Amino acid sequence: MLEYDNNATIPDTQASIETRNLTVNGAGISGLKLPMQIIDVDGQTHHTIVTTEAEVLVAADERGTHMSRLVETIDGLSPRLEITGLTAAHKKMLVRLGSSSGRLCLRFPWFIAKKAPVSGIESWLDIEVQYRVESARNSKRAKTIQVLRIPVTTLCPCSKSISKYGAHNQRSYVTVKLESEQPIPISPLVSIVESQASCAVYALLKRADEKFVTETAYENPKFAEDLVRDIYQAIENAYSPVSLGVSTENQESIHNHAAYAYIGRDPRGLALLS
Amino acid sequence: MLEYDNNATIPDTQASIETRNLTVNGAGISGLKLPMQIIDVDGQTHHTIVTTEAEVLVAADERGTHMSRLVETIDGLSPRLEITGLTAAHKKMLVRLGSSSGRLCLRFPWFIAKKAPVSGIESWLDIEVQYRVESARNSKRAKTIQVLRIPVTTLCPCSKSISKYGAHNQRSYVTVKLESEQPIPISPLVSIVESQASCAVYALLKRADEKFVTETAYENPKFAEDLVRDIYQAIENAYSPVSLGVSTENQESIHNHAAYAYIGRDPRGLALLS
Amino acid sequence: MLEYDNNATIPDTQASIETRNLTVNGAGISGLKLPMQIIDVDGQTHHTIVTTEAEVLVAADERGTHMSRLVETIDGLSPRLEITGLTAAHKKMLVRLGSSSGRLCLRFPWFIAKKAPVSGIESWLDIEVQYRVESARNSKRAKTIQVLRIPVTTLCPCSKSISKYGAHNQRSYVTVKLESEQPIPISPLVSIVESQASCAVYALLKRADEKFVTETAYENPKFAEDLVRDIYQAIENAYSPVSLGVSTENQESIHNHAAYAYIGRDPRGLALLS
Amino acid sequence: MLEYDNNATIPDTQASIETRNLTVNGAGISGLKLPMQIIDVDGQTHHTIVTTEAEVLVAADERGTHMSRLVETIDGLSPRLEITGLTAAHKKMLVRLGSSSGRLCLRFPWFIAKKAPVSGIESWLDIEVQYRVESARNSKRAKTIQVLRIPVTTLCPCSKSISKYGAHNQRSYVTVKLESEQPIPISPLVSIVESQASCAVYALLKRADEKFVTETAYENPKFAEDLVRDIYQAIENAYSPVSLGVSTENQESIHNHAAYAYIGRDPRGLALLS
Repeated sequence: MLEYDNNATIPDTQASIETRNLTVNGAGISGLKLPMQIIDVDGQTHHTIVTTEAEVLVAADERGTHMSRLVETIDGLSPRLEITGLTAAHKKMLVRLGSSSGRLCLRFPWFIAKKAPVSGIESWLDIEVQYRVESARNSKRAKTIQVLRIPVTTLCPCSKSISKYGAHNQRSYVTVKLESEQPIPISPLVSIVESQASCAVYALLKRADEKFVTETAYENPKFAEDLVRDIYQAIENAYSPVSLGVSTENQESIHNHAAYAYIGRDPRGLALLS
Repeated sequence: MLEYDNNATIPDTQASIETRNLTVNGAGISGLKLPMQIIDVDGQTHHTIVTTEAEVLVAADERGTHMSRLVETIDGLSPRLEITGLTAAHKKMLVRLGSSSGRLCLRFPWFIAKKAPVSGIESWLDIEVQYRVESARNSKRAKTIQVLRIPVTTLCPCSKSISKYGAHNQRSYVTVKLESEQPIPISPLVSIVESQASCAVYALLKRADEKFVTETAYENPKFAEDLVRDIYQAIENAYSPVSLGVSTENQESIHNHAAYAYIGRDPRGLALLS
Repeated sequence: MLEYDNNATIPDTQASIETRNLTVNGAGISGLKLPMQIIDVDGQTHHTIVTTEAEVLVAADERGTHMSRLVETIDGLSPRLEITGLTAAHKKMLVRLGSSSGRLCLRFPWFIAKKAPVSGIESWLDIEVQYRVESARNSKRAKTIQVLRIPVTTLCPCSKSISKYGAHNQRSYVTVKLESEQPIPISPLVSIVESQASCAVYALLKRADEKFVTETAYENPKFAEDLVRDIYQAIENAYSPVSLGVSTENQESIHNHAAYAYIGRDPRGLALLS
Repeated sequence: MLEYDNNATIPDTQASIETRNLTVNGAGISGLKLPMQIIDVDGQTHHTIVTTEAEVLVAADERGTHMSRLVETIDGLSPRLEITGLTAAHKKMLVRLGSSSGRLCLRFPWFIAKKAPVSGIESWLDIEVQYRVESARNSKRAKTIQVLRIPVTTLCPCSKSISKYGAHNQRSYVTVKLESEQPIPISPLVSIVESQASCAVYALLKRADEKFVTETAYENPKFAEDLVRDIYQAIENAYSPVSLGVSTENQESIHNHAAYAYIGRDPRGLALLS
């Protein structure tokens, strides 16, 4: 692909006349990776690796978009990106590409400093985060969608109640997808999710911590359905977002398949990061 | 997870009273794999491995669904499934689970017998196929969505026109997502997609075939935007489906990222199989 | 790539003189998928989807191999392949390609019919299987390596012993890699692995079954190190294979990382299917 | 898993007597992710996300290792790791864990600043890098293995020579695995690989650049076999490493499978990063 600007004696194939009369809803690039320092709305900062997608609408009378300008748009986000600046970056992309609508997606690992529950020793927990800024065709307003994917422990209430001892439990991935007037900081969202799970997960646990998380999970059994309801309510209460979806995928320890549940109209959106 | 029917002196935790007053849009299982013989609507048949998802809505006054009945539903589809029977299977699932709506997804590799263009030697081309039967809440009617992911060759028109010789080309994955009154057979859909690409791909090519595909691709350069428009028009003309989405993801040979384009309202749906 | 046989007025680039004096240890194709009916050495049969790799050594004075003949070799394995015939297929490949050594790999999902432990209801458990037939340079003898990847439940002895109640448990993937005089049937190998785990996993469990697997896992706690030792001993005792490697990867329910252990000289080989 | 040290009234299950008399070659953790600043031996520095593995040998008379100490070992590498310090980190791990041998693996995306060949515009190219420090049982010396995975363009000599115009080309992933007395800096290794390919790949190419890379690839056709030979020779000449393996995986634009070639004794090691 190439820059299709007027710099050239080289023929510009992309500028040729388009007669099929079909709008292309999105054309762009995906899988472009960059190192970036990301600053969350609450000031939390991490150097991370961002996998990007950028696309614009191609009108019915245009043959194609300018792929290299989308690469330049993404390059322009590094080395330091404030989440509060995403909407402006999206707008700049549309102007640069001369398109009426488009979408800018960033996806990256993010890290939460966790203190082990008894020993208090700190370690990092990696979660997956996505931001998606998109505008509808001919709409002035862009909306920003946040998606978080957070590992937790779930313990099965049924297994606990029917068994003499023990209960099956597993790592589960909770996905939260929300749109709000202003981006919500990542850290408190993760805390809400963890507080509703059977137990949070940690990278580093000493023996006293392991006892704690084992017993805590046993004391807080949750079905997949329980978990998404409790998280949904807690986020609703805390933030009243414009739209909200919550899913969990439980990697069942007793099966070779997952159990899942979601609240929201868009299950596929919730699975985005899986 | 377990069977929550009334067979037991074992307590049924799932049947407990639910007070959060939140509908769970879907609860179910994913990643369950089975061997199945699939019979397409045109009689084409393959033994394949099906990765399944099955979910139902959990009403606001119910605590959870019966995960093991969903496993039984899926088991009931094997060993031999006619695509024409999918709607009935979906209906049966809702009855069995006592739910007003739900979704049944099957995803599997499918094989097209291809003749090499000059030598005529046959080989298999593997594509990815998904069927999704879903009903909206309280709707009687289920709709069936088909998704196909098909590899083709694309050759860049710009690269060809500006270069003294050669042109960059690459493997591209075209995804077609459609809803229609009746499922459309897979084979002719694949043929339409291949006929619009720069060239089709094949597992087995002799030297005369390789000359043919190299030259054919060079004679049929297409941008990502061209390809989705041409495929969209061709499928529209042939089938007038209720809804249609088309995407391509070109694994650029000159970059370490992809270029893509799509027509349709649901880019994420198009990426489903990638 | 193409057929480099002598059929042509088309120039044969591959046959040109090679002067770099470097043997290429393997050249071939990977990721080619085919539907195949596989017959195990004990007669167990499944239709499955096989992902293949085929390669041969390219001698220091040859420029390249004949990729299309490798595709033909693989095509020749379908539609029905007996595991006992793998060595002969490998030999035929070397003759067809005119090479002194090479490797043929098949990887596919396989299915075990499992009866739930109390209700006795049957369901399929999917495992991953690989066969690799390879010969050392200038060796007459080809060896066949089998690799199985089997999901089981593990429950942590430490968590159990230190906690008032409960114990963390998780799905674990056991990988067994072995070379033997004759291929060993898959089914009894899977049984050995399952019998040493905290508990086997099943697709379909009724309530009474779920009680059983929960309690069984609690009664049989195993560290990753315990599990690989017990499986290693059990397979040694049953089959005395020429070489044996055993690993487990436990998808810890209390962490977002895995714990693993292996016995054998080749950890990477054990990770092959993960 | 937990810390098994003597801090506790909590029973230490791990310290129990081991009677199976089987050495566990490696026990540890995998998939633990951390943000880290990595300093290469030539001073090149990137903040990146490191996926880690750490394991130690468990002697025949020990029941298990101390998983939480391995997490601490890895935590101790952040926030700033010099590649020259890897051997010392490995040694420290063995001392901390009280084991005679072990392995420490780090895998991360790394970035090369590339200038487009004509316009000179800079962009990042992402490659994958792995370092593995390992010691054989009872050996004092640890060896460091470097693995790089680098995308390039390859263009098929056969397709070019038999066709009237054009030639199929594709993105290929070259993997270089080497052991040397001292780690070799990443940047010049990447340059060697790129200089032997049909052409290098870039994130950002303007029209004049696209013309350049298209023509350059056409002028430098290479089979998979050619590419691994040329890279092998070039690295041998430049560095004479203790051991060297080179592979390429060409994502054929005319097939739905890959063509590959490798030089070295360990094909699986070469595929490590794919």
